[in-house]
Amino acid sequence: AINGSRLWDSLMEMAKIGATPKGGVCRLALTDLDKQSRDLFVTWCRDAGCTITVDAIGNIFARRPGRNNALPPILMGSHLDSQPTGGKFDGVYGVLAGLEVVRTLNDLNYQTEAPIEVVAWTNEEGSRFAPAMVASGVFAGTFDLEYGLSRKDLDGKTMGEELARIGYAGDAPIRGRDLGAYFEAHIEQGPILEAEDKIIGVVTDCQGQRWYEVTFTGQEAHAGPTPMSRRRDALLGAARVVDAVNRIGLEHAPLACATVGLMQIHPNSRNVIPGRVFFTVDFRHPDDAVLAEMDAKLRNAVTRVAQEIGLETEFEQIWYYAPVKFDAGCVDAVRGAVAELGYSNRDMVSGAGHDACYLARVTPTSMIFIPCVDGISHNEIEHAHPEWCEAGCNVLLRAVVAKADA
Amino acid sequence: AINGSRLWDSLMEMAKIGATPKGGVCRLALTDLDKQSRDLFVTWCRDAGCTITVDAIGNIFARRPGRNNALPPILMGSHLDSQPTGGKFDGVYGVLAGLEVVRTLNDLNYQTEAPIEVVAWTNEEGSRFAPAMVASGVFAGTFDLEYGLSRKDLDGKTMGEELARIGYAGDAPIRGRDLGAYFEAHIEQGPILEAEDKIIGVVTDCQGQRWYEVTFTGQEAHAGPTPMSRRRDALLGAARVVDAVNRIGLEHAPLACATVGLMQIHPNSRNVIPGRVFFTVDFRHPDDAVLAEMDAKLRNAVTRVAQEIGLETEFEQIWYYAPVKFDAGCVDAVRGAVAELGYSNRDMVSGAGHDACYLARVTPTSMIFIPCVDGISHNEIEHAHPEWCEAGCNVLLRAVVAKADA
Ligand SMILES: NC(=O)NCCC(=O)O
Ligand SMILES: NC(=O)NCCC(=O)O
Repeated sequence: AINGSRLWDSLMEMAKIGATPKGGVCRLALTDLDKQSRDLFVTWCRDAGCTITVDAIGNIFARRPGRNNALPPILMGSHLDSQPTGGKFDGVYGVLAGLEVVRTLNDLNYQTEAPIEVVAWTNEEGSRFAPAMVASGVFAGTFDLEYGLSRKDLDGKTMGEELARIGYAGDAPIRGRDLGAYFEAHIEQGPILEAEDKIIGVVTDCQGQRWYEVTFTGQEAHAGPTPMSRRRDALLGAARVVDAVNRIGLEHAPLACATVGLMQIHPNSRNVIPGRVFFTVDFRHPDDAVLAEMDAKLRNAVTRVAQEIGLETEFEQIWYYAPVKFDAGCVDAVRGAVAELGYSNRDMVSGAGHDACYLARVTPTSMIFIPCVDGISHNEIEHAHPEWCEAGCNVLLRAVVAKADA
Repeated sequence: AINGSRLWDSLMEMAKIGATPKGGVCRLALTDLDKQSRDLFVTWCRDAGCTITVDAIGNIFARRPGRNNALPPILMGSHLDSQPTGGKFDGVYGVLAGLEVVRTLNDLNYQTEAPIEVVAWTNEEGSRFAPAMVASGVFAGTFDLEYGLSRKDLDGKTMGEELARIGYAGDAPIRGRDLGAYFEAHIEQGPILEAEDKIIGVVTDCQGQRWYEVTFTGQEAHAGPTPMSRRRDALLGAARVVDAVNRIGLEHAPLACATVGLMQIHPNSRNVIPGRVFFTVDFRHPDDAVLAEMDAKLRNAVTRVAQEIGLETEFEQIWYYAPVKFDAGCVDAVRGAVAELGYSNRDMVSGAGHDACYLARVTPTSMIFIPCVDGISHNEIEHAHPEWCEAGCNVLLRAVVAKADA
């Protein structure tokens, strides 16, 4: 069994980097704080006897040799970056659970047949640089390296520049590595496990996503002497689309999710009718056909609203992935571990995207969920109890060892 | 008659300070660029033989002595600050028209009976620091000096700090000065004069305004695994109020104006349900009773939307002034000047707020409007033809001299 308090202490130690007043973390991808968390992770891995490699998109791999190092490694991990007002568990739990597996095997002096690797993927959140999971997507061959390196933040800085700046543009091979399997432990980020009093989610699927960027352009004008009839108010258009997005989500409830999370208003002055508004849309559904219906409704709504108000529109779907089915063998390895350990559990579809979604394209993959309090994530108050963290890590240990020794 | 090309050259020279690529200016109140424009204005006034004083809220007065300097001065002016994407005429036209009056009187070697003063009011726009016209409001005794100095921008910097930083916190008396009259020349900022092919607006009234600040607080949560039914989306609430504000404006059209110009979304991340949104509302109407009706409707809408979504609300009316009736004597002085000059004209109600609205509380006041192309203002493409600028300045000259010699 793993050492629950060592895992907890590492989580709390890592959470000091970018700690926010409300108990969360702000550790946006490729900032100085992200670098600090990477450095700490690398130090801990070296202390645990691992060798470190970093690839060209900044993914960090910490390798613990097996008895037969010609065998492809079993990977486990997640990400260290966070949302601007993120929590102490989203991502970092899966990385440090992987490290705890290594530390436990060291304690036990146990050598797996195949080597194992703990991985920290770059920019999973997609908050500073869109889309999410871009570096695991590059690793898995879904995106070109060039695409990954050229992702821009709202200030125009690219992932490539920022990787170089913090010293995490490495030279490990990014493609075509032979892998044995990938396991990712993560908090659920939703309310189901806690509501049903289950301690482990056996993740069988991940819902699909579509992300959009919309720019409405109208005409800036004075809020005072410009009659209502002469206005082309870009914010009015954006507001109507926000409402339409919500309606589309409700029409496909309970499974659909539909969100406008980001909006920028230009010139953003109290007495100026907004001339330009940029905003994003995030759609999710486990059924790809429904996701396509939602897409059609969004396009209709944007066109209709633009016509009503006389706005010019730029509309782009910037990200899409179809619902993912995880590998039956990996899911069984998780299920077997849960059964041996006697944890309460249920099968689950992930509502969030994870690096596992892209890894599933190149190696047998599955995920292990633990609950989070009130289902709250992407929030500074995100919380997971130590016994939940310990349970998920025990499952990870057994699933990984089973695969590595198979 | 004034020198139209000298006035135009000065306008174009001043427009270089903070010039934007699209032909406008960005010269937010109390920035380094505002300081540059103040310095240039002061230099030009000194060159024209004026003495300069600055009061504690940064208003600049350039005085040309009269024959009898015991008489209260006749003031003319406007403001040098602009919107973030403002034009070359809004405000600066009234200041430089005042300077051109002084230069013309110098050319003619004409001494008025009463002294005359050109004034540049601080922060008329209310864009960087809300509300608008705050420094003329302090001058007129509507606001305390402390209130004026403590206005904060979105970064938390105060007007007092910024005035000191740019060296425009002066010591001229701010209250209780005996004044003869105030005239403000300005572009209309709306479409009426141009549509009716009139070159001068004789401004008899200014419509009333109410400004509000609203903060909705819901709960940040993950856009993926958070079911629609569990959301408290602050941006959805703000969007519904934007639509309600527009509806309220339309219900009281054609005279009402209703605008949401500024909105800040927190944490503003694509895959986070917004937890907090701050936005402003700007209401205008020439009839105070209708403005009160609009106020009641807004309060209802905000309460209803907050209940629908489960949001906490902070709601504050941060600014209000009732519709203003300008002084009959000053309006007549303008009307007389227009008649002598034979300009096409009409009476007008100002849609925008102006420093004249506060000056009207302490001295006989009126305004002179000239058209602007397509009625567009608070936009980089704002434009006024040289002959319009010249005509308005000729009216200003005659009205001011008539008052100063009365
Ligand atoms: N797990 C997680 O928060 N991923 C971010 C990408 C997404 O929004 O699904
Ligand atoms: N004239 C002008 O643009 N004033 C700004 C204050 C307002 O919005 O009315």
